[in-house]
Amino acid sequence: MSFLGAAAHAQPAAVILGVPYDATSTFRRGSALAPQAIRWASQSIETYSPVLRRDLESVRYDDGGDLDVDGATPEIVADAVRDAVAGTAPGALPVLLGGEHTLTLGAVQALAARHPDLAVVQLDAHTDLRDEYEGRKVSHATVMRRIMEAVPPERIVALGIRAGTGEEFALAGRYRACSPRLSVRSEIWRWLQDRPVYVTIDIDAVDPSDAPGTGNPEPEGIAAGDLLAFLRRLADLPVAGVDLVEVSPPYDPSGRTAVLAAVIIREVVLALRGG
Amino acid sequence: MSFLGAAAHAQPAAVILGVPYDATSTFRRGSALAPQAIRWASQSIETYSPVLRRDLESVRYDDGGDLDVDGATPEIVADAVRDAVAGTAPGALPVLLGGEHTLTLGAVQALAARHPDLAVVQLDAHTDLRDEYEGRKVSHATVMRRIMEAVPPERIVALGIRAGTGEEFALAGRYRACSPRLSVRSEIWRWLQDRPVYVTIDIDAVDPSDAPGTGNPEPEGIAAGDLLAFLRRLADLPVAGVDLVEVSPPYDPSGRTAVLAAVIIREVVLALRGG
Amino acid sequence: MSFLGAAAHAQPAAVILGVPYDATSTFRRGSALAPQAIRWASQSIETYSPVLRRDLESVRYDDGGDLDVDGATPEIVADAVRDAVAGTAPGALPVLLGGEHTLTLGAVQALAARHPDLAVVQLDAHTDLRDEYEGRKVSHATVMRRIMEAVPPERIVALGIRAGTGEEFALAGRYRACSPRLSVRSEIWRWLQDRPVYVTIDIDAVDPSDAPGTGNPEPEGIAAGDLLAFLRRLADLPVAGVDLVEVSPPYDPSGRTAVLAAVIIREVVLALRGG
Amino acid sequence: MSFLGAAAHAQPAAVILGVPYDATSTFRRGSALAPQAIRWASQSIETYSPVLRRDLESVRYDDGGDLDVDGATPEIVADAVRDAVAGTAPGALPVLLGGEHTLTLGAVQALAARHPDLAVVQLDAHTDLRDEYEGRKVSHATVMRRIMEAVPPERIVALGIRAGTGEEFALAGRYRACSPRLSVRSEIWRWLQDRPVYVTIDIDAVDPSDAPGTGNPEPEGIAAGDLLAFLRRLADLPVAGVDLVEVSPPYDPSGRTAVLAAVIIREVVLALRGG
Amino acid sequence: MSFLGAAAHAQPAAVILGVPYDATSTFRRGSALAPQAIRWASQSIETYSPVLRRDLESVRYDDGGDLDVDGATPEIVADAVRDAVAGTAPGALPVLLGGEHTLTLGAVQALAARHPDLAVVQLDAHTDLRDEYEGRKVSHATVMRRIMEAVPPERIVALGIRAGTGEEFALAGRYRACSPRLSVRSEIWRWLQDRPVYVTIDIDAVDPSDAPGTGNPEPEGIAAGDLLAFLRRLADLPVAGVDLVEVSPPYDPSGRTAVLAAVIIREVVLALRGG
Amino acid sequence: MSFLGAAAHAQPAAVILGVPYDATSTFRRGSALAPQAIRWASQSIETYSPVLRRDLESVRYDDGGDLDVDGATPEIVADAVRDAVAGTAPGALPVLLGGEHTLTLGAVQALAARHPDLAVVQLDAHTDLRDEYEGRKVSHATVMRRIMEAVPPERIVALGIRAGTGEEFALAGRYRACSPRLSVRSEIWRWLQDRPVYVTIDIDAVDPSDAPGTGNPEPEGIAAGDLLAFLRRLADLPVAGVDLVEVSPPYDPSGRTAVLAAVIIREVVLALRGG
Repeated sequence: MSFLGAAAHAQPAAVILGVPYDATSTFRRGSALAPQAIRWASQSIETYSPVLRRDLESVRYDDGGDLDVDGATPEIVADAVRDAVAGTAPGALPVLLGGEHTLTLGAVQALAARHPDLAVVQLDAHTDLRDEYEGRKVSHATVMRRIMEAVPPERIVALGIRAGTGEEFALAGRYRACSPRLSVRSEIWRWLQDRPVYVTIDIDAVDPSDAPGTGNPEPEGIAAGDLLAFLRRLADLPVAGVDLVEVSPPYDPSGRTAVLAAVIIREVVLALRGG
Repeated sequence: MSFLGAAAHAQPAAVILGVPYDATSTFRRGSALAPQAIRWASQSIETYSPVLRRDLESVRYDDGGDLDVDGATPEIVADAVRDAVAGTAPGALPVLLGGEHTLTLGAVQALAARHPDLAVVQLDAHTDLRDEYEGRKVSHATVMRRIMEAVPPERIVALGIRAGTGEEFALAGRYRACSPRLSVRSEIWRWLQDRPVYVTIDIDAVDPSDAPGTGNPEPEGIAAGDLLAFLRRLADLPVAGVDLVEVSPPYDPSGRTAVLAAVIIREVVLALRGG
Repeated sequence: MSFLGAAAHAQPAAVILGVPYDATSTFRRGSALAPQAIRWASQSIETYSPVLRRDLESVRYDDGGDLDVDGATPEIVADAVRDAVAGTAPGALPVLLGGEHTLTLGAVQALAARHPDLAVVQLDAHTDLRDEYEGRKVSHATVMRRIMEAVPPERIVALGIRAGTGEEFALAGRYRACSPRLSVRSEIWRWLQDRPVYVTIDIDAVDPSDAPGTGNPEPEGIAAGDLLAFLRRLADLPVAGVDLVEVSPPYDPSGRTAVLAAVIIREVVLALRGG
Repeated sequence: MSFLGAAAHAQPAAVILGVPYDATSTFRRGSALAPQAIRWASQSIETYSPVLRRDLESVRYDDGGDLDVDGATPEIVADAVRDAVAGTAPGALPVLLGGEHTLTLGAVQALAARHPDLAVVQLDAHTDLRDEYEGRKVSHATVMRRIMEAVPPERIVALGIRAGTGEEFALAGRYRACSPRLSVRSEIWRWLQDRPVYVTIDIDAVDPSDAPGTGNPEPEGIAAGDLLAFLRRLADLPVAGVDLVEVSPPYDPSGRTAVLAAVIIREVVLALRGG
Repeated sequence: MSFLGAAAHAQPAAVILGVPYDATSTFRRGSALAPQAIRWASQSIETYSPVLRRDLESVRYDDGGDLDVDGATPEIVADAVRDAVAGTAPGALPVLLGGEHTLTLGAVQALAARHPDLAVVQLDAHTDLRDEYEGRKVSHATVMRRIMEAVPPERIVALGIRAGTGEEFALAGRYRACSPRLSVRSEIWRWLQDRPVYVTIDIDAVDPSDAPGTGNPEPEGIAAGDLLAFLRRLADLPVAGVDLVEVSPPYDPSGRTAVLAAVIIREVVLALRGG
Repeated sequence: MSFLGAAAHAQPAAVILGVPYDATSTFRRGSALAPQAIRWASQSIETYSPVLRRDLESVRYDDGGDLDVDGATPEIVADAVRDAVAGTAPGALPVLLGGEHTLTLGAVQALAARHPDLAVVQLDAHTDLRDEYEGRKVSHATVMRRIMEAVPPERIVALGIRAGTGEEFALAGRYRACSPRLSVRSEIWRWLQDRPVYVTIDIDAVDPSDAPGTGNPEPEGIAAGDLLAFLRRLADLPVAGVDLVEVSPPYDPSGRTAVLAAVIIREVVLALRGG
């Protein structure tokens, strides 16, 4: 399966890459099944976006399949993602499908090497700022702490954040912005327009009523419609890469989390590379 | 089982009729189970509506059971629905419970024959305007295209619509109104007040968070509360018939989609025939 | 398991007590499993509330485990709860985890004996005001009727109420307030500030999209975020006891209803006994 | 929907009748949904039995739809079943689809009136011999006790029985035979060949691995294949009526319990009325 | 993900290939999700088989990922499988993971071209011998009919078969053997030892109690343990290719069907290429 | 809730103790919910065993509730179990309900201290003989390795074992017996009769068709009926303690795994302490 019938192109405008890895998700695993479930769910939606009035059929995007991260440690997974993103052609937007949040570390490392002034926009319920989690330095629960070692906190904007320890929130206070909501003040938005931006979307940023299929649902999330409206506005920013992580199909018998994920990817690709 | 304890009456004000058919729903079947699941769920709600301050116990409505549409082609199903609706007593409001959307074709054909100026209000996530789908001319995905052959597009109002191909949206542009929202401009509301109206409610018009039990959930839907508020206002219109389709119980272990469907039917009958 | 790692203290500020009983829930049982499921789900949330900026680690609260209500009649369960609440130390806030709504009768009886001017705030989808249900005088469907025999209706405030018979709504008209919404007029809020208040939270007050794991889901409920905002304001009231009832884990494979319940308990304890 | 495409015939050889009632099933309801779920599942099987080498297409059997037992007491349900069975044409085998076990009382009453020497074969996990259950004399848990008032115990053969109180097993000791297995000694089989026999099949007679969709699964049951082999041998007995009860679809997401039920009905009709 | 940590080898002894296609499975889709679900489930089993006393770690087998069959017609899928199998290195055993049964047509075509005397062993609940199904000549329901056009019936052995129309069973009578059981007479086994054999395993050959995650569960199937014992004996035959089809993860929340599928693949590879 | 209505006794013959801990179960958590789910399920079975012809109502057994093992390391859990078992009155049979397998270590340590010649009978699908797992020395996957440090391998009998690494099976070769089946040679049975025996039952010893609710289902397991027959024979052995672990309710929507667990506990208590 490929996402919404993506095919290979000589110079793709975007490349989708799955990272089916969930080994550090100790509470409830399953996100390794997400890349295929999202591709399958994409069969039930259209290529056309009536909001953007654009059609994926007019976009040269590829589905590069899945990275082979079997039995790997989280460090190796991050490295594999870093190498894969570093290897994408300059014009091709990398769009990563998790799997757990760990993959974001590698993607940010690759793009920070290419763009020294890279900014990171994190959409997430959780701070993910622990220094260590269950004995691991690289994990879904520490990923933003590790990213802070590659991108200074004043170049990080975190939205949807509503869970963490007191210590983690203190650390997040050093970000350029950290909010439980999606709203970004206009000067921050302008600041983002001035530099390459990596956007990481943890599906649990979305309210569990809209995205029940995830390992750690947290109430008081962002409405799916608000997230989509936000993502459509990404056309205004120089986005260098995107990921969508932590969809966990086994916890959602309705399948609507995977459908939402497919719509998110479609709208992101159309907003950034369509028309 | 009958809906909320409906019984037979000499001159019923409304007649509920199930159409347990889902044979063209190729992605995920199950809507054939909806009529009984909705009747069963109706046991967990009250006959009284605190918003309308009316009670179904004061309404003479019948539950006519289910049409026998076993093994039928979609064309035969549409014909059977057409005959059943044509056969209802003049004062009795037909209230159809799908099953898939295909049944709407027959209902509209019957009422358009009786009311040459019939208008259609479609509440739906999808345009359903394909000319052909998987080799079929009559299908849940083509039903509005076929209806356009009985009711001209300027007598169709489509609300909740947020999925379709570019071609389908172009066609929907010929409707009197087509919107992803529920809002109807006042002149269109007045126009609807002047002629018999058929209302078809595809449950996927509702947001998947409120109605996960459906075959093709689509994000950014109408809130259940907004839909109910809209339906309670139907008392202002000369409604000639109503259907509720595409509830698919197997995808909702919480059972709340069937409960919502039961409340929808209660409020519709109370709004149109109560008090 | 204990709730969020609660431990025993000499003079606890709050005591959590489970009442795993669901024998009168004839439609769909399962709420007896809620106390443990909520404790388990509490492992996936943090002790820190970023909204209240307080941490449960600074609160001396205990988890007293579960009452033994095996095979008991509802009358005996109510008595056991009454005795348990009557036996809590004066400074310790009783926080009860149902189980079905029946337990509230015992808690109110105990606190009304201690505080003759006790007021009751009921957050619920249903009036629960039947005089008798399936042959029982004490049941989840009659609990507020029985409570009215201990606390006069003018000292009851019912919010979120959107289901009941006409007769029940007529009776609820005698309450100080009864509304489908969460809003409380300011003079009623001031009135509540003047006397000890018992708060009973039936999870079905919350909209089924946010709390699908319950026996009788009812549409048009309160948003989870609005409920949490309301509960955080309880710090303004002299709250004498709280319960959270009717969570039914088997109907929610996503587990998010139990997570929401855990967050509710955390926020209530932090609002009333934190910092 | 009708069962496997059954149609109306002038002189049917068998009549299928649904009884969607589950009001006394206090532990876990859902069997009221079984008649429709079994009809729906019948779409996924063939009309041909390769074991019996017969085809339902050659049998004149009808599907009479469902009895209207809405809101009825169990006594009324039993009466309605009794009247319906009494009203079937002499040559037409009544085949009842529950719903809960209560319906068997009515069927046995009707046939015992017609055949004073009626024998009853009960396939069941539970004795169902309580004299009263939760205050009711007529209930799924007392049905065989009530039947013993119409058919003396020496004309009852109970197979698959592996759960009950000591008192119930003492009472079952008065049956002609009572066994946890399916085996029937040859003199008992010959005895059954000499008189009209009613066969009631509680799906929980079958092992839960083969029939997980039921309210009270009990281990150490009969293998589905052994039950089917037994039922195919019913051709040797003068069977006067059959029922299949206690299938509860919500507890089996695989749907295989309803498929098994459809195969059971097909094989029973083919064995008794085929070829 | 790759199956049980398979890696790339210069001259692999076996190559696993996924075919995530389920477009003709009109009753209940989902088998397109099987290849990834089986790979994920393989993480929960060991590489070592205590029965065969062999370890996959000693076998040079590859996981070639999935064929891209997005949006393809069944004819195109069969062609893609045919080309992929034709392109495998001579010594490498092709092991295909469905997806629906349609893929077997392509695999048999490829191997029949290479081995003119190819025999086919079909393990399946259904005959799959319709000439046309829902308007299609190539479909999961017609696949054996199409295969009979490449391999004459006297070179086909079908086991586990227990569902089909009378006409289909008449056709299957022309096979070398057709049985509802797994037993193969010794002269047929010897005959199979004399020529290249393709083995197609439809998971619904297995009893639904052992493999509930499939689209069309059929009672009276083969015990999982008996199937595994049979497959371990394949070491005696000159097997040219194997497939495992029709696992459908959404219908099995326990995940055990995918685990069984992973064990089947492990045992097949170990039996044919291990030690 | 207590198990089947157990009450406190002065000198109990058996004491049930829950250990709701699953923190090292990294693949799929949930067994911490088992003690309550098993108690709840016990409401749907009888106290009487028709096979043993004994009734739990005649046995003085207690349900001691759950150990508080919240947030504990596996080492601390094992210690807490060890202390609890060491503290049971001499005549009281300890019956532990997991939770994950780790608890067995503590129980064996306590009883080995009391009975230096203690033998261990392990019923399990997996060897659990890793020396370390995911960085932990005490874990569900290493528990038998740790137990071998307290009880020499020649005093261990392992049945149902069908999964492990080659190294683990080599180690298990040093046991007095290790078999994938339940059969015990008569000299081993006699040997067991001569010394105190601890019996640990991992529910995954049972075939997944009978016990789907577990974290790591493994095909080719023991039939539930065979396990029960084996356990009823325990009356012949001087059993010093029993546990039942790894039931994981979220993976079994039918609830039959918890029902089976309840029957296992009833039969064990009746066999060892009844009549």
